[in-house]
Amino acid sequence: MGPPATAVTPPSIASPPEMYVRRATGMMMSPMSLIVQKFGGTSLADAQKVHRAARRAIRAKLDGQRVVLVVSAMGSSTDELLALAHAICPDPPKRELDMLLTTGEQVSIALMAMAIHAAGHEAISLTAGQLGLVTDSVHTRARIKTISRDRIDRELSEGKIVIVAGFQGIDASGEITTMGRGASDTSATALAAVLGATVCEIYTDVDGVYTADPRVVPQARKIDRISYEVMLEMAAAGAAVMHSQAIEFAKKFQVPMQVRSSMTDVEGTRIMAETPDMEAVAVEGVTLKEDLAVVSLLGVPNTAGLAGSIFAEVARSHILVDDIVQNIYDDGRLANLSFSTNSGDARQAEAVCRELAAKLGIAGVEVDHDVSKVSAIGVGMRSHTGIAATMFDALARAAINIENISTSEIVISCIVRSEDGLKALRYLHEAFQLDEARDKNPVG
Amino acid sequence: MGPPATAVTPPSIASPPEMYVRRATGMMMSPMSLIVQKFGGTSLADAQKVHRAARRAIRAKLDGQRVVLVVSAMGSSTDELLALAHAICPDPPKRELDMLLTTGEQVSIALMAMAIHAAGHEAISLTAGQLGLVTDSVHTRARIKTISRDRIDRELSEGKIVIVAGFQGIDASGEITTMGRGASDTSATALAAVLGATVCEIYTDVDGVYTADPRVVPQARKIDRISYEVMLEMAAAGAAVMHSQAIEFAKKFQVPMQVRSSMTDVEGTRIMAETPDMEAVAVEGVTLKEDLAVVSLLGVPNTAGLAGSIFAEVARSHILVDDIVQNIYDDGRLANLSFSTNSGDARQAEAVCRELAAKLGIAGVEVDHDVSKVSAIGVGMRSHTGIAATMFDALARAAINIENISTSEIVISCIVRSEDGLKALRYLHEAFQLDEARDKNPVG
Repeated sequence: MGPPATAVTPPSIASPPEMYVRRATGMMMSPMSLIVQKFGGTSLADAQKVHRAARRAIRAKLDGQRVVLVVSAMGSSTDELLALAHAICPDPPKRELDMLLTTGEQVSIALMAMAIHAAGHEAISLTAGQLGLVTDSVHTRARIKTISRDRIDRELSEGKIVIVAGFQGIDASGEITTMGRGASDTSATALAAVLGATVCEIYTDVDGVYTADPRVVPQARKIDRISYEVMLEMAAAGAAVMHSQAIEFAKKFQVPMQVRSSMTDVEGTRIMAETPDMEAVAVEGVTLKEDLAVVSLLGVPNTAGLAGSIFAEVARSHILVDDIVQNIYDDGRLANLSFSTNSGDARQAEAVCRELAAKLGIAGVEVDHDVSKVSAIGVGMRSHTGIAATMFDALARAAINIENISTSEIVISCIVRSEDGLKALRYLHEAFQLDEARDKNPVG
Repeated sequence: MGPPATAVTPPSIASPPEMYVRRATGMMMSPMSLIVQKFGGTSLADAQKVHRAARRAIRAKLDGQRVVLVVSAMGSSTDELLALAHAICPDPPKRELDMLLTTGEQVSIALMAMAIHAAGHEAISLTAGQLGLVTDSVHTRARIKTISRDRIDRELSEGKIVIVAGFQGIDASGEITTMGRGASDTSATALAAVLGATVCEIYTDVDGVYTADPRVVPQARKIDRISYEVMLEMAAAGAAVMHSQAIEFAKKFQVPMQVRSSMTDVEGTRIMAETPDMEAVAVEGVTLKEDLAVVSLLGVPNTAGLAGSIFAEVARSHILVDDIVQNIYDDGRLANLSFSTNSGDARQAEAVCRELAAKLGIAGVEVDHDVSKVSAIGVGMRSHTGIAATMFDALARAAINIENISTSEIVISCIVRSEDGLKALRYLHEAFQLDEARDKNPVG
C-alpha cells in the first residue's frame, strides 16, 4: 500500500531544526519513552533466534516502553535470493532486484510478529509501503526522503509492538526500493529520529565496536563510548559494524545509539555526541576497506570547475566515490586526479572517465584494480601530532608499499595492494597500541 | 503501494453487465488481442522452468499479442514458509500469515521479469498493491472486490510483458491479503475478465482436465472440452486442477480458459460455455474430496428460517460449508440437518453448532470425522436417468458403505469413510466407463 492519506506532509527527516525542536521540547513525544531495536540477519538466523529477539522486545515493553523493531532478512537469505537472481539473469534489472530482495525482510517481520504473538503479546508487522517510508527512486541505492509516523503511532497507541521491515522503502509512485546492503541500520536510525526514540539499539553478532575487526585482529579491544563522527569515519573506512548512512542520521538528529550482541546482555558500545575527554586519545580505531579500485585521470587541465564537472558526471552514473586525491604539476597547469571506488563500479567508472577525458582534453585514464585502504581514525588527531609518521613507519616496517595517501581532520588513509591489506591492519593496530587502555595511547 | 489515484472507481468485476458490454462492443479493448498466462508453482520450480515459462510468454508476445503473466510461488516455497511459521507459532495470526506467504509470489514475479529480461525482452513485475487488485479484509480467504486496469494498460502500451503476483491482494486500507491456496488461478481469471483477454491459459503439471485424477486412477482420460458448469462442480467436488472461485469468474464473465502442461505443447482442456453436444454424455468425470468432516444437528425444530439462521451463524465464523443435507421426521416437525466441512474447520464448526443448539432448542450435535466425498458430475444428468442407481450399485459391489447422499442438477455425491475414498473413486470411474470415448457412455 502507499502511505496513508495523512502522509501528504509527513515530518521530513531532512529538516533537522524541526527535529531538534521536537526532541528538545518533547511536544510531540509520547507519554512513554520509545525504544527502537534493530535485529540483523545473524540475530534472526533460525526460529530460536527469532524467539530470543522477540523476548528482548517484550522485556522492553514490560519495562514500560513503546517498542519499535526493525528487522533484516533472516541469516543468509538475501545472499540466497541474489544467487537465485544471478542464476536466472546475469545482469538483473535493479527494479526487479529490489522487488526480489525486499521479500527477505517481509518474511522476517511476519515471523517476528508471530513469535511475539506466540509469547502472548500483541504485535503488528509493517512493510515500508504500509508505514510510509518514502525514498527517492534510485533502485538498490535509494535514500530516505520522508517517513510518516501516523501508522506507527496508531499501532503503538493500541499497545502493540510495531515491527518494521528494514532495508526497504517505496518511492513516490509506489515502486519498491532498497537502500543498499546493511541499510536496515539506516531504517532503524531514521525511524528513531522521526519517533524521538530515547535510544536506538543495534543488535548484531558482535558485542560492540572494536578498535579493529576482531575477526582479523584478535588483539582488538571493545570501545565503550564513541562519537558519531569517529563512528562515521570508521564505517566509511570499512568497519562493517554499522551502515554509514545510519550513523549520518544518528549524528544529524542526535539519536543515542547502542551497538550490542543479540546473544548476551553485555553492554555494547554507545555511539553519542562527542565529549571533551574523547580528544585525549589520538587514534581510536583502525580499519580495512577491501575490494577497491583507484581510477586516475592523468594530465587534467587545472582550470576552475573542472573537477566539479568530472564528479558531477560520475555521480550521475550512481558510482560511489570513496576518497579523492589530487596533485598538481607543471607549475600548476596540470593535475593528476585519482579517486577510489568499489571494484564492482570500476568498469563503469572507467568508461565514464574515458568519455570525459575525450571531451575535456584529459591526457589519460588509468585504473588500478585490486587495492585496499587502511585507515587510522580518531578525534584526537586534531590535537595530536606525529600520527601520520607513526602510520607510514609501521607500514614501512611491514615492507608494505603505500600507493595513494589521503588525510582529513580525523582520518589518515593509505591505499595498499589487496594482498597487503590484512597485514597492514595488524601492523597499524600494534603501532597505535590499540589493545591497551585508551589513556596509554603512545602518540602526542 | 496502494492502487493509483485513478483507481478510485475501478471497473468492478462484480458488475457483469458492464463487463459483457465491454467484451461485446470491444470499446475498451486494446487494438491487439490480449492473453493471460498463469504458471503454477510446479511450472516454476527451478531456474530452468522459469526460463521455459518466460519463453512461452515471449513467443505469445512475438505472435503479436499483449501478454499478462500471473505466477504462483515457486515449487514448494509456500509449504516451506508455512512450516517456518508453524515452527515459530502454533496458531499464527492470519494477517501475519498473509504477510509471510505473499513473499512467495513476489519472489516469482521478480525472477520471471529477470528471465524475460535475460532473453532480451521487456517486462515488469507488479504486486497486487501496485496493480490495484483489491479484496475484502478476510485474511487467508479474501475475495476480490475490484481490479484496476490503469497500471497494466500503461505497462502493456509501453510494449512490456506484465507479470502479476497471483494469490495476493490488498484490502481497502492497504493490508496484504491472500485468497486461499490455489487462488492464483482466481487472480488470472479475474484479470482475464477485466482485461477482456481472448484466452486465459492455466499452465500446470498435468496436460489437462481428466475424467478422474490420473495419479490415482491410471485409466483416467483427458477431456478436450468441458463446460464452465461441469468444471465448477468438479473443482468444488475435489478436482484439484483449478481453483473453484477462478472457474466462477470464468463462467460469470465468459472467459475462455485452457488448462495445459507447461512442459509440452500438447493441447490441453478448453473450458468454455456449454454447447448442445455436451449433454449427450451423462457423466463427464468423477472426483474425490478428502479430509472432510460431517457435522449433524439432530432434532432441529423444523420452523421457517431456522436453517437460514444456522448457516448465517456458521458463515459469520468463516467456516466453509461443503454440502448440506436435511431430512425431516416426526410428521415434519423435526429435522436432522447435516453439512460437510474441511477437517480443519470441524472443531470450530462443532463449537458454533453446540452454541446454536443450546440457543435454538436443538436436541444434539454429532460430528463424523475422517470422511471423504465421491461425486459423479455431468450436464447430461439433466436428460439421462439411472445415474444414481449406477453409482450406488458400483459402491455396493465394492462393499463400501454410503453415509450421506446429496444430489444437484448435475452432481451426485456420496459421503464415505476416508479409507474407502480411493477405492470408491476407481469403482465409479469403471462403472461409468469413463476411460472410453465419451459418446460410448453407457447410461441413458
